[in-house]
Amino acid sequence: MMPKFASFSLADIDAFLRRDFPQIYIHGEIFSVLEIGHGTCQMRMAYHDSQLRPGGTISGPAMMALADVALYVALLGAIGEVPLAVTTNFSINFLKKPAPRALIAGCRYLKIGKTLAVGESTLFSEGDEAPVAHVTATYAIPPH
Amino acid sequence: MMPKFASFSLADIDAFLRRDFPQIYIHGEIFSVLEIGHGTCQMRMAYHDSQLRPGGTISGPAMMALADVALYVALLGAIGEVPLAVTTNFSINFLKKPAPRALIAGCRYLKIGKTLAVGESTLFSEGDEAPVAHVTATYAIPPH
Amino acid sequence: MMPKFASFSLADIDAFLRRDFPQIYIHGEIFSVLEIGHGTCQMRMAYHDSQLRPGGTISGPAMMALADVALYVALLGAIGEVPLAVTTNFSINFLKKPAPRALIAGCRYLKIGKTLAVGESTLFSEGDEAPVAHVTATYAIPPH
Amino acid sequence: MMPKFASFSLADIDAFLRRDFPQIYIHGEIFSVLEIGHGTCQMRMAYHDSQLRPGGTISGPAMMALADVALYVALLGAIGEVPLAVTTNFSINFLKKPAPRALIAGCRYLKIGKTLAVGESTLFSEGDEAPVAHVTATYAIPPH
Repeated sequence: MMPKFASFSLADIDAFLRRDFPQIYIHGEIFSVLEIGHGTCQMRMAYHDSQLRPGGTISGPAMMALADVALYVALLGAIGEVPLAVTTNFSINFLKKPAPRALIAGCRYLKIGKTLAVGESTLFSEGDEAPVAHVTATYAIPPH
Repeated sequence: MMPKFASFSLADIDAFLRRDFPQIYIHGEIFSVLEIGHGTCQMRMAYHDSQLRPGGTISGPAMMALADVALYVALLGAIGEVPLAVTTNFSINFLKKPAPRALIAGCRYLKIGKTLAVGESTLFSEGDEAPVAHVTATYAIPPH
Repeated sequence: MMPKFASFSLADIDAFLRRDFPQIYIHGEIFSVLEIGHGTCQMRMAYHDSQLRPGGTISGPAMMALADVALYVALLGAIGEVPLAVTTNFSINFLKKPAPRALIAGCRYLKIGKTLAVGESTLFSEGDEAPVAHVTATYAIPPH
Repeated sequence: MMPKFASFSLADIDAFLRRDFPQIYIHGEIFSVLEIGHGTCQMRMAYHDSQLRPGGTISGPAMMALADVALYVALLGAIGEVPLAVTTNFSINFLKKPAPRALIAGCRYLKIGKTLAVGESTLFSEGDEAPVAHVTATYAIPPH
């Protein structure tokens, strides 16, 4: 299902993110890639006050930002550096209010085709097994 | 379709947002409500460097944040202050790369029921007619 | 937004549907195109016992089938006969139980690009203004 | 995560489906439940000419019908007979053209709450490992 393999070290990914996703560093070093594989990735977003919503929970857009970048990284893990890949559809179901602590996003791809890739990501509060959100997203891959 | 009417001035909305959505003010006064009606709303997000992605376009999560808060405000316009209403599903189609300038989100609700509300929002670059993104979202409304 | 125009008569559409969507005629002549324009379409599905669910309402899959074919027809109205266009994403929000009578699907496209088209469809019970369902769908258009 | 357990035999499920989903038997005995667990289910849809689309593939609405009933059955497996549970959102990504043979839908729930349940289903052509479609769906559960 995965057309070709790309070998990325965590350091390569870190350099890529700093260049192409500068906005995730606005509040400091809160995003980190824990694992990357062939169309898979585990990413962590440390808790930061800027994400907070009243009631002590994390805002929806902060969760969306985590899943979006994690799915992008997992795609890099499968097809290599495609800085022009663009999200075409992003759909999230919010399942449970996350506690005010770090979130982990686990990602995998259901399909990586020549022009479209479809992945899913499940978000958890660190140390808790019940998912707080689930995402499916589609990426358009330019000719490469 | 709309169970009750709530009259909100733009000043009321502004006070509500500062209290319940403090994260949208992190980068200054970039969000503003242009209009609010009965399940409708028009909201503007001024352009700010923090939203930028390489290629001179606005990041997906910044667009999602705009649509999410705009749909919340439009719901306030229909059912009044329901600070515990929670987004359960949020689905966005990205249609076109937005230029690096202000975005406008227009919202309307397709259904406002007793426990669930479903709305849609279309996002435009200010001054351009072709939509850059389209959102549908579902909100769970607690007993009130 | 619409790259080229195709002129289709209702008779052309009818011939196309009988050849490429034979399954919609399984229960007789229940589907009919009321209008077709440039990326728009209005389609009617007559009520038929095969759609019924207990409680006197119409099944979800019957509504999905109507929206899917109506969106396909509206795409034909914009880009001409592309029998290989394929649905890549189809997302429906059910808003209200439809009465056991004819359904009307109104469709329009938000984007018709070279490789992807994104449309929306709103479904109504004939003679009732409150929508029963709302669909957004993405179609992949092969090189043509 | 699962509020209560319901024990259903395959025979119970079969009786339930014949009464509440009569439309799936219109073309004969093509749907069968292979397994049912606590919020999980595996269901098979035998190949039937009525599902065919030109090009020898299975129509989108036929796949949607399979996922919809399979997710309903998996919900029964968790919370028991809730004939009034209604689908509120159904979102499908089509990944690959299915061959003209039986489809298998595997389902699991991400959340089963008091008023909302969110499940996912992955569809495969029988004997093939690459998924042909992936669904997420939300069900509203009436007070029970």
